[in-house]
Amino acid sequence: MTAPGTNTDAVLSRFSLNQETVKQWSLPELAEGCRKAGVTRVGLWRAPVQEYGVERAARLVREAGLTVTSLCRGGFLTATDPGARAAALDDNRAAIDEAAALGTSTLVLVSGGLPAGDRDLRGARERVAEALGELAPYARERGVRLAVEPLHPMFASDRCVVSTLGQALDIAERFPVEEVGVVVDTYHLWWDDTVAEGIRRAGAAGPDGGRIAAFQVADWVTPLPAGVLLGRGQLGDGSVDMRALRELVDAAGHTGPIEVEIFNEDLWARDGAEVLAEVVERYAAHVL
Amino acid sequence: MTAPGTNTDAVLSRFSLNQETVKQWSLPELAEGCRKAGVTRVGLWRAPVQEYGVERAARLVREAGLTVTSLCRGGFLTATDPGARAAALDDNRAAIDEAAALGTSTLVLVSGGLPAGDRDLRGARERVAEALGELAPYARERGVRLAVEPLHPMFASDRCVVSTLGQALDIAERFPVEEVGVVVDTYHLWWDDTVAEGIRRAGAAGPDGGRIAAFQVADWVTPLPAGVLLGRGQLGDGSVDMRALRELVDAAGHTGPIEVEIFNEDLWARDGAEVLAEVVERYAAHVL
Repeated sequence: MTAPGTNTDAVLSRFSLNQETVKQWSLPELAEGCRKAGVTRVGLWRAPVQEYGVERAARLVREAGLTVTSLCRGGFLTATDPGARAAALDDNRAAIDEAAALGTSTLVLVSGGLPAGDRDLRGARERVAEALGELAPYARERGVRLAVEPLHPMFASDRCVVSTLGQALDIAERFPVEEVGVVVDTYHLWWDDTVAEGIRRAGAAGPDGGRIAAFQVADWVTPLPAGVLLGRGQLGDGSVDMRALRELVDAAGHTGPIEVEIFNEDLWARDGAEVLAEVVERYAAHVL
Repeated sequence: MTAPGTNTDAVLSRFSLNQETVKQWSLPELAEGCRKAGVTRVGLWRAPVQEYGVERAARLVREAGLTVTSLCRGGFLTATDPGARAAALDDNRAAIDEAAALGTSTLVLVSGGLPAGDRDLRGARERVAEALGELAPYARERGVRLAVEPLHPMFASDRCVVSTLGQALDIAERFPVEEVGVVVDTYHLWWDDTVAEGIRRAGAAGPDGGRIAAFQVADWVTPLPAGVLLGRGQLGDGSVDMRALRELVDAAGHTGPIEVEIFNEDLWARDGAEVLAEVVERYAAHVL
């Protein structure tokens, strides 16, 4: 028997590196860093991909032999203003095109928060579902599944009105499983005592994890920084039992990628290769 | 018909001022400020009461004709270390004594977070329930009900492993309704689409709101400050539909106090009387 981390192929067999974890790296640096570390899967973000050029980025990852496990992110579908709503739908169609160009079947959607002065969470969630109805056929034609990501309730007002896996499934289940899935992210869901039930429910929707379109891991650490967005913890530094959640996701039939997505300014200030090596080591110790 | 706020008696008929909302006031200033504003109910905190002297504080509020609607807070019952656990139980018995001395029947309990290095939320919640079993008889003999307060999930690791009203009720329902209730605080629960169901369930447990031992209001505003503790918003400044939640609590049979509890450094930097006047005005406009 080998200690965790000593058999790199086995350790990395489902590992995917979300590029925001090593935001200090350009796309070519990401491709090169992954090659050196034996990492074959990445999750990408729209802004750096657009900056580099979508077709150019697609060629880069293809030539580097990388699989793109998800594109983050579309969404922000809660506007009440018709012009803003139309613009959001256009932007999401562009995101779908970008996902297709990059060869990933998973577009992560962050729903959006409450419009200014609005206090109607239920109405906002309903607008998300309506927008999915408009986008799902377009996505399906391009081989892309929309993945609704519940974000931690601390983001409910300003970023994502979908706060629990149960809510995400309530929305996703209005659509065929091939069209709309959900994202299970340990950082957002770890506190919820109904999450095991939600993961089972997601898995029961079909083969290969059913509605689980993506599984992302990060740890929960405190104190939270101002604005709370960049407070995610390195794997193993915090309170999340990531292994237990990974086992639930496995048991739900998800055999696909496990994507490490950590937004943390301390990690960004360090050498990217060093961060990636540490992430892989922590992943072996705390997720596998 | 009179505009909101013009009939002070009607506006204030259920109003209670939690002292942390005007933390800049000493206890005598609080008593005097409430007298001037026609406020007859206050929620108190242990630290300033202890500093002033419990008996002396009890006499002060009694002589000022103030009713103490709750004492914040006991709890922090998640320790695994036997010594720390015994100390926490002792401290909670002291808190029960203090509540009794102040003449309030409601001791608010914040459960406590995960011990260092611990990732077992379920185990921690179980320890909270066990501790309540030890404390409830002691409290009952002194006319005090333990009020389990679910805190927003952003506090789950470091402050309170009980994050939803449903979880709080799961724990409270192991005990007679006279012994253990729950706190409904709009700041902590507003995002949860199961909160209406939880409030109904709490109300169905008995007369006078059943398990609803306290109803507290504050608004949710962003961006959250570092540490997130002092980020509560003045009523009306944020995303919470406080009136809708108040109506649910009313419908559940709670006819008792509505306690305004806002931790906000900007409010603390202002004149206490001015803050209280603004709070009452906002309360009339956004809660009643």
